[in-house]
Amino acid sequence: MLGVFFFAVSGSLLAARKRFDIVASLILASLTGLGGGVVRDVIIGAHPPAAFAQPLYFLPPVIAVVLVFFFFNGVTRFRKTLLLSDAGGLGMFCVAGTVKAIDFGVNPLSAALLGVTTAVGGGLLRDVVANVVPSILRQDDIYALPALIGAGLTALLVQFGLFNAVTAVLAALLTITLRALSIKFRWHLPLATPHSQAPGD
Amino acid sequence: MLGVFFFAVSGSLLAARKRFDIVASLILASLTGLGGGVVRDVIIGAHPPAAFAQPLYFLPPVIAVVLVFFFFNGVTRFRKTLLLSDAGGLGMFCVAGTVKAIDFGVNPLSAALLGVTTAVGGGLLRDVVANVVPSILRQDDIYALPALIGAGLTALLVQFGLFNAVTAVLAALLTITLRALSIKFRWHLPLATPHSQAPGD
Amino acid sequence: MLGVFFFAVSGSLLAARKRFDIVASLILASLTGLGGGVVRDVIIGAHPPAAFAQPLYFLPPVIAVVLVFFFFNGVTRFRKTLLLSDAGGLGMFCVAGTVKAIDFGVNPLSAALLGVTTAVGGGLLRDVVANVVPSILRQDDIYALPALIGAGLTALLVQFGLFNAVTAVLAALLTITLRALSIKFRWHLPLATPHSQAPGD
Repeated sequence: MLGVFFFAVSGSLLAARKRFDIVASLILASLTGLGGGVVRDVIIGAHPPAAFAQPLYFLPPVIAVVLVFFFFNGVTRFRKTLLLSDAGGLGMFCVAGTVKAIDFGVNPLSAALLGVTTAVGGGLLRDVVANVVPSILRQDDIYALPALIGAGLTALLVQFGLFNAVTAVLAALLTITLRALSIKFRWHLPLATPHSQAPGD
Repeated sequence: MLGVFFFAVSGSLLAARKRFDIVASLILASLTGLGGGVVRDVIIGAHPPAAFAQPLYFLPPVIAVVLVFFFFNGVTRFRKTLLLSDAGGLGMFCVAGTVKAIDFGVNPLSAALLGVTTAVGGGLLRDVVANVVPSILRQDDIYALPALIGAGLTALLVQFGLFNAVTAVLAALLTITLRALSIKFRWHLPLATPHSQAPGD
Repeated sequence: MLGVFFFAVSGSLLAARKRFDIVASLILASLTGLGGGVVRDVIIGAHPPAAFAQPLYFLPPVIAVVLVFFFFNGVTRFRKTLLLSDAGGLGMFCVAGTVKAIDFGVNPLSAALLGVTTAVGGGLLRDVVANVVPSILRQDDIYALPALIGAGLTALLVQFGLFNAVTAVLAALLTITLRALSIKFRWHLPLATPHSQAPGD
């Protein structure tokens, strides 16, 4: 729920920056907080998805919208807090998403990819719907890779019977730490091609 | 079917405005008319979705494409008619979408949200695919809220055993009326934040 | 697998052109190569979708990303090869997609539409996620129609008990040929409307 909330805040903040109204804010907050899990559940065949099976999941987006409405300036001032909170959501979602996929009989590698989908899918939907280039594609730091590492580690732990509350927290913390370090030290990945772009191509 | 048709016309009109060809027109018309229902059915696990179970559903988009091709100027002249027709689709879809979700065992609150998804999802897909900011986010009037009220009322009616042909029509009419009034009087909702945007943020 | 690869290359090339990094390249390559099939499987209720049931499907996108990283200039020089390869993917996917939908009990007309979805869905997702107007909408030549003809022929062949390895290849070749001819002779379809756009509309 905490992960949903922090993701939802980023959706609502995008609505505020774009001068959308409060219903648009609620739509973007819900998409960001719950979209990744819904996409995972639709792919593995969990009907209805968790967000629709348990309506309490829509409470964090509502709270996020209210907070952004009343405290927008305050929220943006805590930019570092927000980035860290988002990293927290990333860590929790990639572990939980991988485990749920394995529970539904998906093989470990695909389960890890679905864990990443859970973690980054909400932010992707937020940006696609708001018609901006997704931040996951234009990151100046590393975003999806820590989630992939956390999800891959989770799949390995389950595979070798070592997954429990402690190792789950460790996998999430690893993701969060890698993400935080990548923000602090502005880690970059190589571009899709090191060659410069041919003009007019 | 009538709701599908009116939504499809808006998809085809967007294709005309963007100078796309007739196949693109058919793609956007189908997405707008049928996309919301397909998303709902994929979420609740209705396989195949209604649009694919009954191919007749693709007839309204085809008619819309033909009409826009031959009568584009005429169609746009009837801007008010179009807005009202779209409101009609909104009213019918939010009621029917909510009822189908409840039939599939979804709880009332989530069913109402899926009713809204059915009503607004097609237009959202149309705009996302055509790469424009979704009209549901940039509305200068109120669009999603009347659908939410109609869907919520439908869920309550079913919950209390009062849902029948008459109350269904009343719920749809309430949505249509609220939407029509919001167009006429240019009702606004508050922005996601009342604070002005911090520069450079 | 070959079709997945050629589609994946186009996703990775888009990432290179947009100056995205290698993880973004992998995301776009996977979406392009596998997205159409995942959408089809989610619609017909094949859980998990083929791409997640068999992790080998993610190998072609990985190879595409590596190739584009090391040989970007070389890849773009073979523009005609690429267009033809993409046509090959289109032909294979529209036949295979239609057959899988029929196997899941979908009626022939809807199955053909799902075959087209399989063939064009990946490229559509690639463009939507990268925030560009989908090439399927802004084609200066004919793209979706050859897929629709190949998918429709496949559905008819199955319907009349004439579908086998030979006729499957013929249906794919028909699609590829029509697509290749449309590139060579710059075939156009009529616009969504022949009327010029009303100013300010």
